[in-house]
Amino acid sequence: MTAAPVTSDDTAGGTPVLPARGAQRPLGLREVEVTGGFWEGLQTVNATATLEHCERWMERLGWLANFDRVADGTTGPDRPGWSFSDSEVYKLIEAAAWEYGRTGDPAADALVRRLTARIARAQDADGYLNTCYGHGGQQPRYSDLESGHELYNTGHLLQAAVARLRTTGPDELVDIARRAADHVCATFDDSGLCGHPEIEVGLAELGRALGDLRFVEQARRFLDRRGHGSLREIPLGRAYFQDDQPIREATAFRGHAVRALYLAAAAVDVAVDLGDDELLGAIVRQWDRTVERRTYITGGMGSRHQDEGFGEDWELPADRAYCETCAGVASVMVAWRLYLATGHVKYADLIERTFYNVVATSPRSDGRAFFYANPLHQRTAGGVSDDDAVSPRAEGGSRAAWFDVSCCPTNLARTLASWQAYAASAAERELTLLQYAPTRIRTVLGDGSAIAIDVTTAYPADGAVTLRVTDAPAGAVALRLRIPSWAAGAVLVEGGRTRVVAAGFAVVDRSLVPGEEIQLLLPTTPRFTWPDRRIDAVRACVAVERGPLVLCAESVDLPPGAVLDDLLVDPSVPPVARSDAAMVRTVGGDEIELVPYHRWAERGASTMRVWLPVH
Amino acid sequence: MTAAPVTSDDTAGGTPVLPARGAQRPLGLREVEVTGGFWEGLQTVNATATLEHCERWMERLGWLANFDRVADGTTGPDRPGWSFSDSEVYKLIEAAAWEYGRTGDPAADALVRRLTARIARAQDADGYLNTCYGHGGQQPRYSDLESGHELYNTGHLLQAAVARLRTTGPDELVDIARRAADHVCATFDDSGLCGHPEIEVGLAELGRALGDLRFVEQARRFLDRRGHGSLREIPLGRAYFQDDQPIREATAFRGHAVRALYLAAAAVDVAVDLGDDELLGAIVRQWDRTVERRTYITGGMGSRHQDEGFGEDWELPADRAYCETCAGVASVMVAWRLYLATGHVKYADLIERTFYNVVATSPRSDGRAFFYANPLHQRTAGGVSDDDAVSPRAEGGSRAAWFDVSCCPTNLARTLASWQAYAASAAERELTLLQYAPTRIRTVLGDGSAIAIDVTTAYPADGAVTLRVTDAPAGAVALRLRIPSWAAGAVLVEGGRTRVVAAGFAVVDRSLVPGEEIQLLLPTTPRFTWPDRRIDAVRACVAVERGPLVLCAESVDLPPGAVLDDLLVDPSVPPVARSDAAMVRTVGGDEIELVPYHRWAERGASTMRVWLPVH
Repeated sequence: MTAAPVTSDDTAGGTPVLPARGAQRPLGLREVEVTGGFWEGLQTVNATATLEHCERWMERLGWLANFDRVADGTTGPDRPGWSFSDSEVYKLIEAAAWEYGRTGDPAADALVRRLTARIARAQDADGYLNTCYGHGGQQPRYSDLESGHELYNTGHLLQAAVARLRTTGPDELVDIARRAADHVCATFDDSGLCGHPEIEVGLAELGRALGDLRFVEQARRFLDRRGHGSLREIPLGRAYFQDDQPIREATAFRGHAVRALYLAAAAVDVAVDLGDDELLGAIVRQWDRTVERRTYITGGMGSRHQDEGFGEDWELPADRAYCETCAGVASVMVAWRLYLATGHVKYADLIERTFYNVVATSPRSDGRAFFYANPLHQRTAGGVSDDDAVSPRAEGGSRAAWFDVSCCPTNLARTLASWQAYAASAAERELTLLQYAPTRIRTVLGDGSAIAIDVTTAYPADGAVTLRVTDAPAGAVALRLRIPSWAAGAVLVEGGRTRVVAAGFAVVDRSLVPGEEIQLLLPTTPRFTWPDRRIDAVRACVAVERGPLVLCAESVDLPPGAVLDDLLVDPSVPPVARSDAAMVRTVGGDEIELVPYHRWAERGASTMRVWLPVH
Repeated sequence: MTAAPVTSDDTAGGTPVLPARGAQRPLGLREVEVTGGFWEGLQTVNATATLEHCERWMERLGWLANFDRVADGTTGPDRPGWSFSDSEVYKLIEAAAWEYGRTGDPAADALVRRLTARIARAQDADGYLNTCYGHGGQQPRYSDLESGHELYNTGHLLQAAVARLRTTGPDELVDIARRAADHVCATFDDSGLCGHPEIEVGLAELGRALGDLRFVEQARRFLDRRGHGSLREIPLGRAYFQDDQPIREATAFRGHAVRALYLAAAAVDVAVDLGDDELLGAIVRQWDRTVERRTYITGGMGSRHQDEGFGEDWELPADRAYCETCAGVASVMVAWRLYLATGHVKYADLIERTFYNVVATSPRSDGRAFFYANPLHQRTAGGVSDDDAVSPRAEGGSRAAWFDVSCCPTNLARTLASWQAYAASAAERELTLLQYAPTRIRTVLGDGSAIAIDVTTAYPADGAVTLRVTDAPAGAVALRLRIPSWAAGAVLVEGGRTRVVAAGFAVVDRSLVPGEEIQLLLPTTPRFTWPDRRIDAVRACVAVERGPLVLCAESVDLPPGAVLDDLLVDPSVPPVARSDAAMVRTVGGDEIELVPYHRWAERGASTMRVWLPVH
């Protein structure tokens, strides 16, 4: 695809998160070009199918026309869509902005402009922009902070504007966002909170992008105001929207998972930019406990359907796993910020796990249907989804074209369009590869010297990764390669020697020679993974993983007449590789083929399980 | 307590369910007098504490004054309480009516009269009676059939009137109910359904009690109208209120558990009275599958918090078990009707299991706080409940004085006040003992001959049950004693011989001699119970039961520093009896004391588990 001219002076192509300080510097979308493979496939489907799909559904349901009706003075209480439908439009703009930044595709640019023009007309003179409140017989502005989602919507508007600003430069969308942010600061200077965190992360990043610290300060006010019970009590309890406990005192993520994670992402932003190490430490601790005790093997978060929320420690049912796609997106947001702040490899490990087993699981291969919830066990085969209908529910074992609450498709779209932002990072004389894919990485290190690496690999189907240095600065430079925690026995071949490298970062710290090749061999032999025995729900079960992929058994691969939930795996026989997945032996002696979890339910209605009983 | 005069000519004392035909005839509350023991204790607390407690809370919250405000023309959209709060008043009246019928306590009679006088004034001229709709700026009548609960409320009014009619005779309450039922028949002759089934069971029983078949026919219309999608689709799906599938075609109970069970109870009533064996067969099959695959060891039903509903087959998480107290009550309603219709012992077995492990678990020992949900695993100790506050939630590991949705306390009250109704039944020349407690049973058999038995026992703490015949008809009579399914090795001593009796009914079929004693010895040695291996949630766990009691481990009984969820039980060492519960050996060699599940959380905040991991 030929790159169209961009007006931004950021030739790096922009990136979603750009902290004021930190252990690592993110690369821009144009500094990491994905040239093929698994993620390029998903990005292409996203660009060519999902963006148009989302726009078409929002037009059909009137979510776009809601903006026109406000502008034309014809809206009212009969407005279609939930109070948060505006945010879907903003997330689609954000996705298109990243897509344009990544590829320069004029269709993506046109989508941004088309949507921007419609939302622009709906903005009130004082900067307020919302189609559900405050116009023509609707409830007054900010009359329902607990569930009205007004500031939540605005937060997504700000994130969209950040994407545009960083990839294309100031434009009408950025002006709209600046006015909206000013309005928020003026209105919520002293008090007030939104039931759904998101304004905080939007304000923090817009403040960074515009160099306007007022917005970051307002984000901090929102953060510190939370947790003192200023929102009204609701039947699900104040933990649902994290107003139960000050964020500095909490010990784990809790309540509604997406809310908890958006809030944590903002907390890292504020902590980093305002030098608030106490706050950063609090989030680091909460993340550690959450990942140890409240996170699925897939990286999925959220154990409860009732409140789309985290459960208690070790409460991780496979069948009723909620693992909302948006919570996967939000978890990547948090982990990426913590990685940039601290440089710790564990955050990049979780990002990989979540990318392959939550983010990649949601979209159907054609990019026109999606999982909202991502359970690890489907007891009864889902129906065949009607691609022409809105699914009223988040669950059901088949991907749906659109949902009544349709937060996931646009969240996926913006994440896939910016996937390469999470693949590498840099520091003073240091380049770090975090995610392995065919990529062309070109950046300028802190001292102004250029470095460029071409990566070729069939990962995750194969663990061999070849790095070819195409440009290198004079003198020693540290090239750091993430060795995933599962990759025991990984081998690095470079500079004429071969060595086994441990989990963490394998570092090549020397002068690099243009043309030289470095080979990393990550063992992708299928392996059994046993659960922590405190997870009651999967006691006496085992999972099979291969490389970064969680595998699953699916009923369509069983012998005729066999019932998936009757299957017992013989753990004394290690799984063996089979194409990109594995075979396991059952207690009865049959060989059962497993498939990557992210591909399940692509071959018709099926039952499925990740955790396989051993007795 | 001295019995006050009753005006009813039913000296049997009335009973909640009186089918037109069936394998067994229920006995009246005065035919089975509970003279001591476990249930007498609960009944006394119910009578002396819970009835007054419920009235006080409903006065405090304005749920009673809602009736006055309708009568005075001062109500409006600001009316306090959920749309179903009227039903709590009716269930309290029903409880007081049974209590008066059981004991003749004038305080219970005064409570019925006091509440009846207030609801009477609120009834509209055409029979409509509801404090939430149709008056002073409220939404119009029947404008929200899906969630308005109007017919649900009316159903409970009818059940209350049945209790009054059968224990005391026709009075103002019965007149109110008759007018309300006439109004329902006139309004819903052709179409319409209530989202929460209950009107059906109320209509059927009122029709029986008044001898007015129109009401039973209207119940049948509601039943057959259901399951064709006439209610609007909701996010939880139409299965939530059983409008997804015709009741004759369903294969298991599904959706909201209380709704499903009230509906099934009505279906049995209609099937029996109208001779509809197809319908009866459908409920029998649904019950079988539900009890096999969707019912907890406690008898609890409802695996999901999200919709207070049944899960799929084998979806029975211990920690997130909902097992609403009201679902336990409703399950007893269904099983009792099926028992009367078919005479099968399995229904009485489930009633016992549910009575001891759901119904008896809910109330605190003082009768002034209650469990709403009855999980089988509490991971974190609940807080200490504030007896002066309304609990916004149904869960939490401690009993609450009152709930925002407070259906359970009054449901318990009416069930406990009528407990002995489920203890025995009769047929032509046959008397059957179903539940063992110190009781004095006196009835007249089908041929007009009297029979009387005094039962003495310390059951369930001890399995020895002594029956003393105090009156007997001439000639052979069948005295049938239920042998619970768990009671392998039960021994019957009668007529000079001792024999081992199998699960089911042990029958003494001969002339009985007044003064003679019959002894039943049910073995109450503690026993391990292994789960069906298809229940993923408790794989590799074992439970301990003793007699009808499910036992549990509670953190307050552990050695200092021990963590309940770290405990592993050694299944090679059988549990041993200890007072009324048991001790088990852990893998580490410690002896851990278990307690009856129904007593948990009576000694302060604790963690608890019924299913104990073995590795």
